Amino acid sequence: MGSVLVTGSNRGIGLELVRQLAASPQAPQHIFATCREPDGPSGKALRELAAQHPSIKLVQLVSLPSIQGAVQAVESHLKGQGLNLLINNAGVSSHATLQSVDSQEMLAAFTTNVIGALVSLCQEFLPLLEKAAKGLGKEGLSCSRAAIINVSTKVGSIGLCLGVLEAPMYPYRASKAAQNMMTRCMAAELKDKGILCTAIHPGWVKTDMGTEKAPLTVEHSVRGILTVLASLSQDTTDAFLDWKGNSVPW
Amino acid sequence: MGSVLVTGSNRGIGLELVRQLAASPQAPQHIFATCREPDGPSGKALRELAAQHPSIKLVQLVSLPSIQGAVQAVESHLKGQGLNLLINNAGVSSHATLQSVDSQEMLAAFTTNVIGALVSLCQEFLPLLEKAAKGLGKEGLSCSRAAIINVSTKVGSIGLCLGVLEAPMYPYRASKAAQNMMTRCMAAELKDKGILCTAIHPGWVKTDMGTEKAPLTVEHSVRGILTVLASLSQDTTDAFLDWKGNSVPW
Ligand SMILES: NC(=O)c1ccc[n+]([C@@H]2O[C@H](COP(=O)([O-])OP(=O)(O)OC[C@H]3O[C@@H](n4cnc5c(N)ncnc54)[C@H](OP(=O)(O)O)[C@@H]3O)[C@@H](O)[C@H]2O)c1
Ligand SMILES: NC(=O)c1ccc[n+]([C@@H]2O[C@H](COP(=O)([O-])OP(=O)(O)OC[C@H]3O[C@@H](n4cnc5c(N)ncnc54)[C@H](OP(=O)(O)O)[C@@H]3O)[C@@H](O)[C@H]2O)c1
Repeated sequence: MGSVLVTGSNRGIGLELVRQLAASPQAPQHIFATCREPDGPSGKALRELAAQHPSIKLVQLVSLPSIQGAVQAVESHLKGQGLNLLINNAGVSSHATLQSVDSQEMLAAFTTNVIGALVSLCQEFLPLLEKAAKGLGKEGLSCSRAAIINVSTKVGSIGLCLGVLEAPMYPYRASKAAQNMMTRCMAAELKDKGILCTAIHPGWVKTDMGTEKAPLTVEHSVRGILTVLASLSQDTTDAFLDWKGNSVPW
Repeated sequence: MGSVLVTGSNRGIGLELVRQLAASPQAPQHIFATCREPDGPSGKALRELAAQHPSIKLVQLVSLPSIQGAVQAVESHLKGQGLNLLINNAGVSSHATLQSVDSQEMLAAFTTNVIGALVSLCQEFLPLLEKAAKGLGKEGLSCSRAAIINVSTKVGSIGLCLGVLEAPMYPYRASKAAQNMMTRCMAAELKDKGILCTAIHPGWVKTDMGTEKAPLTVEHSVRGILTVLASLSQDTTDAFLDWKGNSVPW
């Protein structure tokens, strides 16, 4: 894989994705690690990691028009090459029942998890993904050719609709269900362009979002995710898989 | 069934629901027909219908705080009784591909199909539905006890993800998938309160939204929907059914 971009890479799963990608024996040539404030206090761990690995490039990404600025920054590093892999990892969770949820909270979850982190980003990076897909000697679908990976969650599975009474999380669940629909639509639309599109559930992971109660460490979850990504093909574009490669109902 | 409220009842499926409910031999005592402009030109057909049926009460409903006004209007008619059935029918469709969709269009679809038409409405009418559920002599779940019916669409089924290339409709699909998640969450949360919650796909229907190309007339679709509603029970709360009663994948 020549290049990968990871959003929300200053902490949690995103930071660990960047760490393991950079440390891998087959590390990508360019790892674009995006976050909202690469130069602020919340970007400290990422800056320290980047200082050890020249393949990591920090890119600021908030929302439009900053996305266009990010595309230009990425393009200038790629020097005419395309972007192989876009990992939409940034996301927010939120806890609310039918009675406590308010419209602003619903809108915020949709805006971050579907529109900002997904629609706008995919639109703006699509030309670079298409360029990678046309790369010489690449056939079929794979993360090393061109792919969009949307980090989703089992809690966003409408089919399972797990544990609503214990964890109502209406805005989070609704936004992730919408995100899953976008994954399937994009998979259908982008297949013929040579771009794979898959949703991944990272497991319940010890991060700020997952809390200390979660059973999985980020190291463990991300090791699983990267193994799954390496195995993806035309058979698994349009799939919803967990960090072990098991399929999750939509 | 003592009382029913139908949103988006000035045209299309909503208007026909009100028409058939009012004309039925077991017509509900109160049919609250809501729309954005009951007194404007778009409310003409509904006003004419209401003039023939004293059971039909026109109620203006746009968004908060108008919803609270609508609740008060409904309450004053119900004179201490609860509301048995809330049909969330109002909705907007929108056509856009990944490349053409813009954030405003996504937000508008979410705001209408999930937040306005669903979250706020269910929150505000919940006390009246709970009152109906506690009504004397009612057990189990049914539309004649207390129910929320969310008018959904097969196009919003993530499991099917039908015809994306011919009808991309990203904002509509994403918002209806989110709506379906809300239906399941509400079904889980409200079951023990005696409130049924089911999603209904009306078929592809000749309305302004469905266009003249649609195979089904509104009469036919609504006759089917009302038959399905009458059959719902604790076995079909939490279901996604079409107008013929067939189950649709989430
Ligand atoms: N942890 C779990 O158990 C779990 C389970 C299932 C799915 N997931 C999914 O995994 C992904 C990563 O989660 P995590 O556990 O690593 O969470 P986390 O530790 O809370 O990190 C969230 C990341 O997303 C970024 N982010 C949040 N809101 C944003 C916004 N409005 N705009 C841009 N960036 C924003 C954060 O940046 P800032 O530092 O700037 O806020 C941070 O980099 C999410 O999509 C989440 O839904 C997590
Ligand atoms: N027709 C089909 O083939 C089909 C198929 C599957 C599902 N559905 C679903 O069936 C439901 C009814 O559709 P229809 O075919 O009857 O559509 P329609 O003829 O276009 O009528 C839509 C209704 O929703 C109201 N509405 C639209 N936007 C609104 C907003 N922002 N706030 C409040 N009310 C709003 C409209 O009121 P105004 O007149 O004030 O705009 C109108 O009463 C929708 O939920 C739709 O998704 C329809």
